[in-house]
Amino acid sequence: MIKTPYLLFLGDAPDQLAAKVAQGIKDWRPENAVAQFRMAGCNADLGLADMTLDQAKAAGAKTLVIGVANRGGVISAAWKEVLVAALDAGFDIASGLHNLLRDEPDLVAVANAQGRRLFDVRVPTEEYPIANGVPRTGKRMLAVGTDCSVGKMYTALAVDAEMRARGMKSTFRATGQTGILITGGGVPLDAVIADFMAGSIEHLSPDNDPDHWDIIEGQGSLFHVSYSGVTLALIHGGQPDALVLCHEPTRDHMRGLPGYQLPSMAAVRDLALSLAKVANPACQVVGISVNTQHLSEAEAKTYLATVEAELGLPAVDPFRHGAERLVDALAAVG
Amino acid sequence: MIKTPYLLFLGDAPDQLAAKVAQGIKDWRPENAVAQFRMAGCNADLGLADMTLDQAKAAGAKTLVIGVANRGGVISAAWKEVLVAALDAGFDIASGLHNLLRDEPDLVAVANAQGRRLFDVRVPTEEYPIANGVPRTGKRMLAVGTDCSVGKMYTALAVDAEMRARGMKSTFRATGQTGILITGGGVPLDAVIADFMAGSIEHLSPDNDPDHWDIIEGQGSLFHVSYSGVTLALIHGGQPDALVLCHEPTRDHMRGLPGYQLPSMAAVRDLALSLAKVANPACQVVGISVNTQHLSEAEAKTYLATVEAELGLPAVDPFRHGAERLVDALAAVG
Repeated sequence: MIKTPYLLFLGDAPDQLAAKVAQGIKDWRPENAVAQFRMAGCNADLGLADMTLDQAKAAGAKTLVIGVANRGGVISAAWKEVLVAALDAGFDIASGLHNLLRDEPDLVAVANAQGRRLFDVRVPTEEYPIANGVPRTGKRMLAVGTDCSVGKMYTALAVDAEMRARGMKSTFRATGQTGILITGGGVPLDAVIADFMAGSIEHLSPDNDPDHWDIIEGQGSLFHVSYSGVTLALIHGGQPDALVLCHEPTRDHMRGLPGYQLPSMAAVRDLALSLAKVANPACQVVGISVNTQHLSEAEAKTYLATVEAELGLPAVDPFRHGAERLVDALAAVG
Repeated sequence: MIKTPYLLFLGDAPDQLAAKVAQGIKDWRPENAVAQFRMAGCNADLGLADMTLDQAKAAGAKTLVIGVANRGGVISAAWKEVLVAALDAGFDIASGLHNLLRDEPDLVAVANAQGRRLFDVRVPTEEYPIANGVPRTGKRMLAVGTDCSVGKMYTALAVDAEMRARGMKSTFRATGQTGILITGGGVPLDAVIADFMAGSIEHLSPDNDPDHWDIIEGQGSLFHVSYSGVTLALIHGGQPDALVLCHEPTRDHMRGLPGYQLPSMAAVRDLALSLAKVANPACQVVGISVNTQHLSEAEAKTYLATVEAELGLPAVDPFRHGAERLVDALAAVG
């Protein structure tokens, strides 16, 4: 296991969204987030203290977590300088980037010389089966989005927290590097070999008590041409009983795809539900989660009320206003 | 490149379908198929001469191709004995199995000692980009199926052959091990890392002449819960201008999934087209390819006529009756 607490490395993140790994850790395990480390040109800020490596070490941080996700994953030369210094200063390093720490000879050499560990949470650590599609006991919720990075992980974490606060049986099932860094386990789905994607999710969410909920983190979007296959594997491997639609209402276009408009929530609802019913004919869409971080409080309330009226489903921002109504809807399932 | 011609190894294939790799080579490159090698318990038969290793060597075969696909891919002890003997007899070995020849120390040792080569065509040999969704020039056809192993590769190969016979510009784009063994190149899509699936297909089918057709081999099915994510990555990475629906009418259930019924062709048409339009709004479904190998000639004709009337699209078995009508429909696109 990765040693806590963490120093959250934001590097030269071009914007706040690029630092979503660090933000997730800070929001859901604040006790693990000692400080942030930012380089020249960093445009992200978690509102944590900025510390040097030595200051963070003195404050008790044990692992430097690379809390910034770059498209494709790149460990730049500028980052490398900081990472080597961190190893020299006594930190382990944990990363969810595509480019692996273990593939960087200079990092490996310093880590070995200093007795430090490098954690690549993106790399699958076990072999997954091919999905068999056999129905499993227990209940499952999956978050599906109109786009990438619209709040699917936050929605799942908020639902899980609310369920546990009510004494319901619930487990958050991480499918991405941030979730894995937060919870210490899960499937790094975007790094799984294509044939085993759905099987890895069956493995992640096995048979359970009839009244137990697996709250499965979503990935990508059926309408995002770069990652839609990952999303569909989650829908078919997850066998969800309930879907929660996730949306961010201020996007001009699909993330990373300037030529692509966002789909309507109704289109996502219909497509995701029709696909989910292949694996679980009883699946239903129970609610809508809107990421209103770029709206004022008044705008958010108006938007949520409009969506709720149009789609006839509870529409909330679980991070801003709580996940109570989503959990109410889930508790009413089957 | 893999040396030809081949001895096609059928192992202990439980049924004819398990030997589809060998069948594909024999059907589309018969000049490369010297003989078949069958073990005790083999229930497949290509109609080729059965030869011992020495007989096949004397007949000119240079590479033993493992022409049988097992679920998940396993190199059994019984197979191993034959493969070692083949290396000793002077054959290279080529395989599309998940379990790699290069991961079997005894095979590697014998191959090295004998100066023989081991080809694992399932393993990607290059790094693929993340899909960018940018529209590409040229025309593309993709075969989509109601199930796995319904004839998508055959359909694509038949369309490509007919197009070239007419002097049209056409390239068959292999996305599976059989296609790669047949054509010598392509993307082993089911072995690609999840995040790069759609990007690998963009890479496989780049910009081309406006009147050039890429005939892209399909994989899996949107309705097959084990592999549906791979299928969707093909649809979004391929940006097809035209879809051909593929079906095998005698299945009791989805291949490998006893609890799952086959979808209707109309359901596949609607779902695949709606997903394809995300990447290429001009996409259309142009025809239906039915694998009638388990029907009599009279049954096949009746079935095809019924499907054609019901769906209002040309319905043919391109392997049995030729791909002329599918190519007519494609030639009318755009």
